[in-house]
Amino acid sequence: MGNSRVAGFIGFLVLASCTLSLPSNLRAQEKSLIAIMPLPAQVLQGEGEFLIDGGFGIALRGYEDSRLERAQQRFLDTLSRETGIPLWREAIRNSPHFTVQTSGPSAAVQQLGEDESYHLEISTTDVQLTAPNPIGVIRGLQTFLQLVRITPKGFSVPVVTVDDKPRFPWRGLLIDSGHRFVSISTVKRNLDGMEAVKLNVFHWRFADNESFHVESKKFPRLQGKGSGGFYYSQDEVREIIGYARDRGIRVVPEFDMPCHTTSWFLGYPGLASGQDPSQSSAMDPTRESTYKFLAGFIGEMAALFPDSYFHTGGDECDVKQWETNPRIQEFMRAHAIKDGGALQGFFTAKIQKIVAGHKKIMEGWDEVLQSNTSKDVVIQSWRGQDSLAEAARSGYRGVLSAGYCIDLNQSAAEHYLVDPLGDTAALTPDQKARVLGGEATMWTDIVSDENIDNRIWPRTAAIAERLWSPQEMQDVDWMYQRLAIVSQKLGYYGLRHRLITDEMLQRMSGDPDPVPLKVLAAVVQPPRLYERQQLRTFTDFTPLNHLDDAVPPESDTAREFNEIAKRIVSGKANPQEWQQARQWLLLWRDNDAKLQPLLARSYLTQELAPVSRSLSRVAEIGLQALDNLHENRLISPDLRQRNIEFLKASGKPQAVLLLMVAPSVELLVQATGTK
Amino acid sequence: MGNSRVAGFIGFLVLASCTLSLPSNLRAQEKSLIAIMPLPAQVLQGEGEFLIDGGFGIALRGYEDSRLERAQQRFLDTLSRETGIPLWREAIRNSPHFTVQTSGPSAAVQQLGEDESYHLEISTTDVQLTAPNPIGVIRGLQTFLQLVRITPKGFSVPVVTVDDKPRFPWRGLLIDSGHRFVSISTVKRNLDGMEAVKLNVFHWRFADNESFHVESKKFPRLQGKGSGGFYYSQDEVREIIGYARDRGIRVVPEFDMPCHTTSWFLGYPGLASGQDPSQSSAMDPTRESTYKFLAGFIGEMAALFPDSYFHTGGDECDVKQWETNPRIQEFMRAHAIKDGGALQGFFTAKIQKIVAGHKKIMEGWDEVLQSNTSKDVVIQSWRGQDSLAEAARSGYRGVLSAGYCIDLNQSAAEHYLVDPLGDTAALTPDQKARVLGGEATMWTDIVSDENIDNRIWPRTAAIAERLWSPQEMQDVDWMYQRLAIVSQKLGYYGLRHRLITDEMLQRMSGDPDPVPLKVLAAVVQPPRLYERQQLRTFTDFTPLNHLDDAVPPESDTAREFNEIAKRIVSGKANPQEWQQARQWLLLWRDNDAKLQPLLARSYLTQELAPVSRSLSRVAEIGLQALDNLHENRLISPDLRQRNIEFLKASGKPQAVLLLMVAPSVELLVQATGTK
Repeated sequence: MGNSRVAGFIGFLVLASCTLSLPSNLRAQEKSLIAIMPLPAQVLQGEGEFLIDGGFGIALRGYEDSRLERAQQRFLDTLSRETGIPLWREAIRNSPHFTVQTSGPSAAVQQLGEDESYHLEISTTDVQLTAPNPIGVIRGLQTFLQLVRITPKGFSVPVVTVDDKPRFPWRGLLIDSGHRFVSISTVKRNLDGMEAVKLNVFHWRFADNESFHVESKKFPRLQGKGSGGFYYSQDEVREIIGYARDRGIRVVPEFDMPCHTTSWFLGYPGLASGQDPSQSSAMDPTRESTYKFLAGFIGEMAALFPDSYFHTGGDECDVKQWETNPRIQEFMRAHAIKDGGALQGFFTAKIQKIVAGHKKIMEGWDEVLQSNTSKDVVIQSWRGQDSLAEAARSGYRGVLSAGYCIDLNQSAAEHYLVDPLGDTAALTPDQKARVLGGEATMWTDIVSDENIDNRIWPRTAAIAERLWSPQEMQDVDWMYQRLAIVSQKLGYYGLRHRLITDEMLQRMSGDPDPVPLKVLAAVVQPPRLYERQQLRTFTDFTPLNHLDDAVPPESDTAREFNEIAKRIVSGKANPQEWQQARQWLLLWRDNDAKLQPLLARSYLTQELAPVSRSLSRVAEIGLQALDNLHENRLISPDLRQRNIEFLKASGKPQAVLLLMVAPSVELLVQATGTK
Repeated sequence: MGNSRVAGFIGFLVLASCTLSLPSNLRAQEKSLIAIMPLPAQVLQGEGEFLIDGGFGIALRGYEDSRLERAQQRFLDTLSRETGIPLWREAIRNSPHFTVQTSGPSAAVQQLGEDESYHLEISTTDVQLTAPNPIGVIRGLQTFLQLVRITPKGFSVPVVTVDDKPRFPWRGLLIDSGHRFVSISTVKRNLDGMEAVKLNVFHWRFADNESFHVESKKFPRLQGKGSGGFYYSQDEVREIIGYARDRGIRVVPEFDMPCHTTSWFLGYPGLASGQDPSQSSAMDPTRESTYKFLAGFIGEMAALFPDSYFHTGGDECDVKQWETNPRIQEFMRAHAIKDGGALQGFFTAKIQKIVAGHKKIMEGWDEVLQSNTSKDVVIQSWRGQDSLAEAARSGYRGVLSAGYCIDLNQSAAEHYLVDPLGDTAALTPDQKARVLGGEATMWTDIVSDENIDNRIWPRTAAIAERLWSPQEMQDVDWMYQRLAIVSQKLGYYGLRHRLITDEMLQRMSGDPDPVPLKVLAAVVQPPRLYERQQLRTFTDFTPLNHLDDAVPPESDTAREFNEIAKRIVSGKANPQEWQQARQWLLLWRDNDAKLQPLLARSYLTQELAPVSRSLSRVAEIGLQALDNLHENRLISPDLRQRNIEFLKASGKPQAVLLLMVAPSVELLVQATGTK
């Protein structure tokens, strides 16, 4: 743990809260007391703990509404699951040691920038949660739940005073229900997870080339022809909006246009720009009928979704479909539109007027930003922080998604260190204020309803912390320590991310407890970014039941082994770490003999035979390197070179998987001296 | 695996189905092909397999109704989860290789003894499921789902012909929602599990002394005062009845009377026999007002529950409450009722008339059987097979529950070997036919909504097989082999029995992956029968979050170790088994040092310190014994005796847990020779 980072954090606390007296340094024990995510803006730790037992009581004071009552009941349900103490019924009747004081109501429809602050004061005998409105209460209750842990005295929360509010007002998760239908129960439990880590925008995308997944009563052939029978009814949408509102979460719908829209054309071929609508992904932006249709559709959806923001997509338009169509070329000439990009600008301007006509603010991806784009449009950037900064300079508000694409199998650390204000040193305070926050994006090209939880969680908790907590928080090691605990706690919210891998390994192998397959699975990852699609063809009906679908995007074991390898190489490892490295390497070396017979039995595991062999050989090389380093033995340059080459090859994808320990073993070999 | 038992099974198959040519013996490979529960009445195995891939198609032919369509969709959902292949949408559109032929409808309300037979024929290219009615289809679809496994070619089912029907018409699971409220979602997923193993009666018990958990519109103070706010609305009851009917399951309600009824008296104290209703558990059987109330109540419930059977409990009446009440004594004298038992008979006779008046058949526990009990009353026996046989001899139909009490932490083998016709050799065929079947009973005295799945499953699958499959099936080893596979498959139905232990261990320890605690947990069990209640006080608000709540009722590891110990002692163990025993013993011996620091950190694990130490010492003794046996070394009689005494003591409950490997180590020590 870097002490300078800790000191930086403490410094921030002191700076931010002069009235609070803070410890001069944060010791490991104190860190473990607040193993929560996102970290609050300010924490003051005291002495002792508040015990939670069957006598626990809670009461709501001040402003009252049914949402607060439901929040209280949900809090008690979760607290009961966290402790195993049956509180869900009794805690409302017991004499209250936990009082919640709410000053007044929230807005009827949750607003961007609405107050989410709260004050939580825990003594050994009482808990006080104070907030200006129900949203702050919802946030504070989650902080309390995350503080719960077991001690020698029982389940308890530490004595702390928390003053908390978010850094950014827009902290979102996009779930792409356009590419694949995501079930209502999956949406709900992920909203529960969002509440746990204080995210406040559910960006719900409904359509893509492949399918159209929401009910239109005005244009029923959209879902009738475009959904394959699986779509959200308007009643279900309203149910989810209410469910999200209960959790302090806005629902921003996205209807991506004018491209990614093949599925619309199945029911309404007249919208398409191409001759063959089934081959066309772009709407025809030259026909008045297109705008008439969209005015009707947007009107219907603007009424269904109460949020003030309305996302019309606009990304990745294949403008060649327009530029090569003689009729559209003719239109562009007649209107002095110079190219496809400008034609999208023409389309966007018309759509923006329709959206604004329904008193909504339009949001769109980078591409909607053209020279004439209305200044109140919010730009969501998938291109990067530069693009966001550029928009802010031009007077646009923006939300960052580049760096938060959780479908691309990057590490929690990578996401964590991306800051919406990271590259904006040159911006004025006014320009910085236009950066509203960020959104983790769960694109569903290669994810199913079954494994989506393990793509979203726990890494999204790290993004949530980036968007809520002080910018100075950059301690990756501490983040991972807390992430492990928070990840386990997210299970109390029904999330299945920690269960999925084992279940899928059992299915792949046909074995109720395939131990050697688990050993292999613990050290492999799917390739990062877009490499996976290059290694296997994925259609909407490709079964996602291989090992690269089953394992989490990030191998904890490989990360931990890599930390130890780095300490060994730098001469900082202690005897326990040497021993841990050796035990792991022995396990991996000997695993292949046990695993191969299992792999041969199943269609889904046969392809793993060379990966398992590689792991064994990598571990063997690792054991030799470990011995050489330990004994300061020198090896021949030739052998060293051959080993490094083998390790580099083993670090390349095999069976759509990366063997994550190969680079760490390479570190060990690189550190070995030669004769 | 006992060959004689296998031969017996095959013999049965030959006997039962002369038209089928059967293999002369069942090899291990063939056994693995039909790793299903309950085993069908007749199976003919062929060569090859039917592959399940994205081209899988299914069609319903013949009689059609919406229940069949829902069964088809549920089948596809489960098959998709079993394989990871997205079939839930496409399989209905693909060209069908699986055709389901239904001859006609089922009864409007499912009847006892209604035909549940089906014929399933699987070739390498086609599947045919034929049944007289939708219930048979529902049964056959589950057989197909259980046959699915992964092979080197893909997911497939083996080529087989199955002719199947149940041995007993009444195959039930009782869930006691009287003692504790069991949530709707828990009830539903257990109904899914019942469907998977072809159980057909959900015996739903609603009230006990502690609470009254169903809505009465006629007597709303029953749930108003007796439920603590948690009860099933009549709409929810109807929803569950429909859910069960979809799965071929009858719902038999139980309202236990005249005793176990304290909760009724909270709203209606006039029903009580004692002076202080809150101290009384028995209704007053002497007042006309009691019968007037019950006539109204039973009428309301008889209309709510469509099943032909209506359970009025009647067990464990504390008749002293009557025999010591002067007013009731007076009534007994006046009516020549000799004792409390006879007074219960008087009550039962009156209730039976009320029930019969609603065209329902009364069911009750053993105690309702008196000399004058109406012959159509069905007796549910918790006392034993003798009691059931006696009832059958007296002309009563009966259902066995003794031996199937899954709350008592007995082994699957114990339950499996209890047969409803086990002690009935002396009965005539007509008398035997009165034994309708059996019911697993999930009493909820010491179980919560959280851990109920791991008490019910997988052991209930063994009971389900006893009630469905040929009586000759007695091969316990094979049962356990299949149970492991079926247990894993029950996860596809949403059951949480395999997840609960780890989740609870994480909570107890506060550690996201408490490996040494898992090692200990794998070899302990809660004490059997009623010993647990003697070791710790359990009220309705006792948190059920200790290790004895977390571990399954039966330790697989301890059972497997015991099998190896028996083989070692009998000289039949192979080198792998010797090695396995040694590895386990080393693991257990060395675990204590790793576990103790973890145990000290939590209130819930501190009490386990001596258990962990015992395991270490037991394993140490076991390792010495193993060495001595391997080397034929003799030890001193004194040492042997001291070790045996220590092992016997270690086999006694500690911290409400049994260390299950102690008796197996004792076997090893007993087998060691002395000097």
